[in-house]
Amino acid sequence: MKIIQTETAPNPRRVRIFLAEKGITVAFEERDLMESELKSDDFTKLNPMQRVPVLVLDDGTVISETVAICRYFEALNPEPSLFGQSAIEQAKIEMWQRRMELGLFFHIAQVFRHLNPKMSHLEVPQIADWGEANKPKVDEMLQILDQQLALNPFIAGDDYSIADITALVAVDFMKPAKLQVSEAHTHVLRWHKEVSARLSATA
Amino acid sequence: MKIIQTETAPNPRRVRIFLAEKGITVAFEERDLMESELKSDDFTKLNPMQRVPVLVLDDGTVISETVAICRYFEALNPEPSLFGQSAIEQAKIEMWQRRMELGLFFHIAQVFRHLNPKMSHLEVPQIADWGEANKPKVDEMLQILDQQLALNPFIAGDDYSIADITALVAVDFMKPAKLQVSEAHTHVLRWHKEVSARLSATA
Repeated sequence: MKIIQTETAPNPRRVRIFLAEKGITVAFEERDLMESELKSDDFTKLNPMQRVPVLVLDDGTVISETVAICRYFEALNPEPSLFGQSAIEQAKIEMWQRRMELGLFFHIAQVFRHLNPKMSHLEVPQIADWGEANKPKVDEMLQILDQQLALNPFIAGDDYSIADITALVAVDFMKPAKLQVSEAHTHVLRWHKEVSARLSATA
Repeated sequence: MKIIQTETAPNPRRVRIFLAEKGITVAFEERDLMESELKSDDFTKLNPMQRVPVLVLDDGTVISETVAICRYFEALNPEPSLFGQSAIEQAKIEMWQRRMELGLFFHIAQVFRHLNPKMSHLEVPQIADWGEANKPKVDEMLQILDQQLALNPFIAGDDYSIADITALVAVDFMKPAKLQVSEAHTHVLRWHKEVSARLSATA
């Protein structure tokens, strides 16, 4: 079993943090997405979406998509649970995981991909107006998140979950996107300090 | 228990098809998103994202996000499984569900939201260039999907799943977005005819 990644990219980091929280060790193989190594024929056969991370099992089965890879390991190693156990826990974690991914991480990535000249060969066409339009959406989501973290230690409630992993990686991705968390979002800053101090954050 | 929806919107339709496949009946309450009813104070308290569908449980617990609502019902009513059972089934369905949502449905929605004048009060700012840039991305994903459906009856393999629901709603949403599936994608067209003939498709 191995996971193909680009170490500096945010999605592979989500998988590494997830595995570290579970105490699972997997071999990683590096491909440089900035050098167009994901557009090669052999990689495209593994994942037609041409993206990392990709999990390759010993029998050749391929699973791509960060959250799909995490779910595979959650099913095989249920403890500690990072997707929730009861129906209501699972639903709340899925809700917040999606809000963090589609409402926060996605918008930060759009700012980065459409406004950074280095991304011009990966994001075609780059549309600067669209990059700019995503900036206020990032702040709107952080405002909603701040209200949630005023009342809860972690994003989906009392326990650390995949929603915290997605949000941590998203907030750290604000730096290359030249964005920053407003000082007014004190609860987000408190939470960010705490989750960054976990051993898994350096995985 | 009730689900708040806008009947004509694509995401509530995903939940209705999911419930129909499970044989579950839930009361629906209508709010018109085109009339800005989702921006009211009372609805924003339920879902700060101001989107439908929203599931409200009898104890007042609120779950938003289509896939989170579906997971709640999957956990309570595991049969027939629409998210998979074994670790590998769960991972494959999650992978294809995400490809259909992020790689197909999302791009179709961007075409619709950024190019349809009626959406100008919901998508601010509308950026026509971004709407246009999403059109080829829809066709690229349909090409990948066509290859998958050449070898499999359903999107994630042998069984109907949440990935088929997301893709069916996405393909049907191409019409208001003024897009259409190329005649060359014969396997997508075969699949679309079959899943559209299921009773759940009219839910």
